[in-house]
Amino acid sequence: MSAADTVKAYWMAANDRNWNAFAKLLADGVVYEGPQTRERVRGVSNYLRFNVDGFPGDWHLRVIRIVGEDRYAASWIDFTNADGTMQPGLCFFEVNDEGKIARITDFWPDPYELPTQRRHLVERY
Amino acid sequence: MSAADTVKAYWMAANDRNWNAFAKLLADGVVYEGPQTRERVRGVSNYLRFNVDGFPGDWHLRVIRIVGEDRYAASWIDFTNADGTMQPGLCFFEVNDEGKIARITDFWPDPYELPTQRRHLVERY
Repeated sequence: MSAADTVKAYWMAANDRNWNAFAKLLADGVVYEGPQTRERVRGVSNYLRFNVDGFPGDWHLRVIRIVGEDRYAASWIDFTNADGTMQPGLCFFEVNDEGKIARITDFWPDPYELPTQRRHLVERY
Repeated sequence: MSAADTVKAYWMAANDRNWNAFAKLLADGVVYEGPQTRERVRGVSNYLRFNVDGFPGDWHLRVIRIVGEDRYAASWIDFTNADGTMQPGLCFFEVNDEGKIARITDFWPDPYELPTQRRHLVERY
């Protein structure tokens, strides 16, 4: 499988709560990092627990774009929480020799106020 | 040039304030969107003005990762403002038949507080 196919399978398994399929895509020593909170999780079992226990509720996700090249991939998803609020999620992946996901860097951008300095340079949508 | 090479050249030109080189990488009808503020810019001349006038000061940037596939690419940069504060920037690109950048979707994630529900599931760094 290409890195892009692996990431596609990763998001499908997550959305389906198919944690067996999800775990099979991960390297034993997988490292997850969220730079915004400076949080890190190491290893398949910790990472499974993080996903199952850390994100309760009836969320679902939709893949907007996956781009893969060699051992790298990037994804852009829309994540919808149980309360219906939606947030984009951006993820960068590294895949190892065996095609397993070894590294995940995860970003969750929030809405923010348009800065005054560029208000006259854009349209709103 | 591959989509990844085009995006590499795009960030190099931006960092160098080489707006001629920057403009040559763009499709005439380039569309930029920032989903967090719901801001949009259309066309090369508007997009140049947006970059030159909208982001004053002595910022610089460093590419962390560029992933490209066919007409798509994604980039992860570190953007350092004039005051020394640094922020990650994530960008998804679409390139047209002529290898010019036709669409840019730009995300700027801010730090946020680690949610209580997953505090026991992670280490901090």
